[in-house]
Amino acid sequence: MVKPSIPKGTRDFAPTEMIRRNYIFDTIKAVFKKHAFLPIETPSMENLSTLMGKYGEEGDRLLFKVLNSGDFKQGVDFENLTSNQLTSKICEKGLRYDLTVPFARYVVQHQAEISFPFKRYQMQPVWRADRPQKGRYREFYQCDVDVIGSTSLLNEAELMQITDEIFTSFGIPVVIKINNRKILSGIAEVVGEADKLTDICTAIDKLDKIGKEKVCEELKERGLSCEAIGKMDPFFCFCGSNEEKLAQLDKVFANSEIGLKGLSEIRQMLAYAAQMDIKAEIELDITLARGLNYYTGAIFEVKAQNVSIGSISGGGRYDDLTGIFGLKNMSGVGISYGAERIYDVLNELNLFPTNIDSPIKALFINFGEKEELYALKGLQALRQAGIASELYPEKAKIGKQMTYANAKAVPFVIMAGADEIAENVYTLKDMNSGEQRKLNIAEIREIIAATL
Amino acid sequence: MVKPSIPKGTRDFAPTEMIRRNYIFDTIKAVFKKHAFLPIETPSMENLSTLMGKYGEEGDRLLFKVLNSGDFKQGVDFENLTSNQLTSKICEKGLRYDLTVPFARYVVQHQAEISFPFKRYQMQPVWRADRPQKGRYREFYQCDVDVIGSTSLLNEAELMQITDEIFTSFGIPVVIKINNRKILSGIAEVVGEADKLTDICTAIDKLDKIGKEKVCEELKERGLSCEAIGKMDPFFCFCGSNEEKLAQLDKVFANSEIGLKGLSEIRQMLAYAAQMDIKAEIELDITLARGLNYYTGAIFEVKAQNVSIGSISGGGRYDDLTGIFGLKNMSGVGISYGAERIYDVLNELNLFPTNIDSPIKALFINFGEKEELYALKGLQALRQAGIASELYPEKAKIGKQMTYANAKAVPFVIMAGADEIAENVYTLKDMNSGEQRKLNIAEIREIIAATL
Repeated sequence: MVKPSIPKGTRDFAPTEMIRRNYIFDTIKAVFKKHAFLPIETPSMENLSTLMGKYGEEGDRLLFKVLNSGDFKQGVDFENLTSNQLTSKICEKGLRYDLTVPFARYVVQHQAEISFPFKRYQMQPVWRADRPQKGRYREFYQCDVDVIGSTSLLNEAELMQITDEIFTSFGIPVVIKINNRKILSGIAEVVGEADKLTDICTAIDKLDKIGKEKVCEELKERGLSCEAIGKMDPFFCFCGSNEEKLAQLDKVFANSEIGLKGLSEIRQMLAYAAQMDIKAEIELDITLARGLNYYTGAIFEVKAQNVSIGSISGGGRYDDLTGIFGLKNMSGVGISYGAERIYDVLNELNLFPTNIDSPIKALFINFGEKEELYALKGLQALRQAGIASELYPEKAKIGKQMTYANAKAVPFVIMAGADEIAENVYTLKDMNSGEQRKLNIAEIREIIAATL
Repeated sequence: MVKPSIPKGTRDFAPTEMIRRNYIFDTIKAVFKKHAFLPIETPSMENLSTLMGKYGEEGDRLLFKVLNSGDFKQGVDFENLTSNQLTSKICEKGLRYDLTVPFARYVVQHQAEISFPFKRYQMQPVWRADRPQKGRYREFYQCDVDVIGSTSLLNEAELMQITDEIFTSFGIPVVIKINNRKILSGIAEVVGEADKLTDICTAIDKLDKIGKEKVCEELKERGLSCEAIGKMDPFFCFCGSNEEKLAQLDKVFANSEIGLKGLSEIRQMLAYAAQMDIKAEIELDITLARGLNYYTGAIFEVKAQNVSIGSISGGGRYDDLTGIFGLKNMSGVGISYGAERIYDVLNELNLFPTNIDSPIKALFINFGEKEELYALKGLQALRQAGIASELYPEKAKIGKQMTYANAKAVPFVIMAGADEIAENVYTLKDMNSGEQRKLNIAEIREIIAATL
């Protein structure tokens, strides 16, 4: 018999991990809800026609495809088709690659039922056939929040506020980096390479990882003139406060309408944010591009301070995401939080609340038939007060039952033998202090409830 | 441009449905937690070697298989293989078909880390390539709760108690039907067809649907003697209270050790249940078999009263589920709640709490630049009190904003123009009564908080 295993890049989640993951999801969800976002869910499988061509060639390759049911072979010319060509013949469906494309599909498909602006959140797994490595999985969760159908920059500001509230709840100090695609367009314009915006974005996006020199090399490879690259130089080492950066850019963009538009959007976002009690640092970073070509306005990226983990969240405004499905002029803005990255940061900074690791508050020891029924009464009383508790399901050596309690980090153990039954009490053992007391069940209930 | 769609048998969930579904999941989860069950999750994809052969031939066919990534064609002899044979060559993974087999796989794989008895719950989607029809989907959620590693009948009783608490929370009156595989074995024994237990279970299981006559026909087709079928007759119309049924069976099973064992287990379960304050009716139904061959002891099925929907929950004890993965002697008992069925029952009986349909409690009307900043202050105050609320993100005609409020069933609309700003108040409109009052934000906060 082969030891059972799971597909590479996927994970089982044990209770301790689940509880920590649920803490992350619940915290994020509570903030989304308070901000009046509404939940939707879409199917795990989408038609391949919905997914293909939306994530680039690499993305198409990384989609998990689901084999058609039944006699898929029939009528397919296997001999003369490559694996790639065969795929579309034998697979109609694929697993969701992200939550953005399914959301765009959802909005178009259900446009008649939606009241715009539509503020939705969605927290579901996505699948990518990427090479698994530390921190990168083939199945992982995304937590997305978007407003679609409104061009107001209040939405951008609210997303910064939400981000701030989420990471404040977690106790993770973050920097919210912002930029605007129009500023990047302005830069491309003033260096005289307006038609090379995508190349500039792709290269500049790597500044953090590969450094200025290598970015310049790449720009050269991508066909930018030496003169243009020279002109870009000052943008790489832009420093000072947001106000100082904006003032410098005012001059640079004196003749770039789109650049100036970008600046005015940033200023409006910051003005709104100033009304919003945001604790996180907001930093204008004009080299922030994020690979995604569909961004047309604001761009966000969130970095945790004091850890070496990359961005833990990112997003931006897209003016035409639903256009791919035939619905024009539907501007949206959104941000996505990666549960896995947040988990790692909370772990590294030791920020998970300690009380979540003891979900079960009390264990009744099982001493046998008669004692069991008496324990059941006490158990009932605790559960009615909402205290998660259990009775060891069978008579076993007390050492075994105590080991079980310890393994589950149960803070209180409750025992009742003939003496306790006669006195109508229970012996409560505090597993941290080791202290034991005989108490009636109402007293025990109060003591445990006080620790919740 | 083709109107986008989703694969047949799958569903999008709009906010109103999501909120109702989450109410179901949250209610079930709260009961599981109180009973000290711990959550796990397993990957959506399992190795096909884990899944194949576990659900019968039909099940193998209904598994969704995931195409291998990359050049899957290489080295595969397409010409000479059937679709069926090809599948195992080009697919290594499949989507989870239920939560039971992945749980068994999990227990075996992680046995060294688990403290037994292991009380786990799991709420995740499963996928089946079944023909879609009303109430049957290709992607649906199961909510499973199991105790593994304990043979105590306290576990069976606790599952009945959990079931009772869940459906009491929902306000759904239910009957918990119980039986025991050993009673079925006893019946097979006393009618002289002990080796035809599986045939008897399969046929008898259909009694509800096809009636006694057809069941007898099927028993005959399955090779039971006329004499045996004749002897089975009394079992089809067993009536009276549980005690009466048990007393009758005592006589019938006088010479069937296994039958008597079944009766003693039922008696012990009922004795425990009597200590547990269970409100639901518990009914011994000796024709309850449930198709699944892996049940070895208790069998459960839950039916909602007053609706024509079939069973909404079912389960039982299995003594050797992990045996298929090489771990012997690991008895477990579990029950599964179907979210879709519960949804339909709550809908039909009009039992969804009405307040969940208004998740957003207040909308601030947007009157323009200056008013917006004042509204933001009020919005902040409400959100800090945990009130889900929003500001319409842009200045729009008030009629449009009111339509938006109505579409989202927002109970309170808050307005502030120059007058209100001057007085440092807001006009609160109760959308149910139509009443409007000028109040300061603290007063508004209290009024709304009182409705939560």
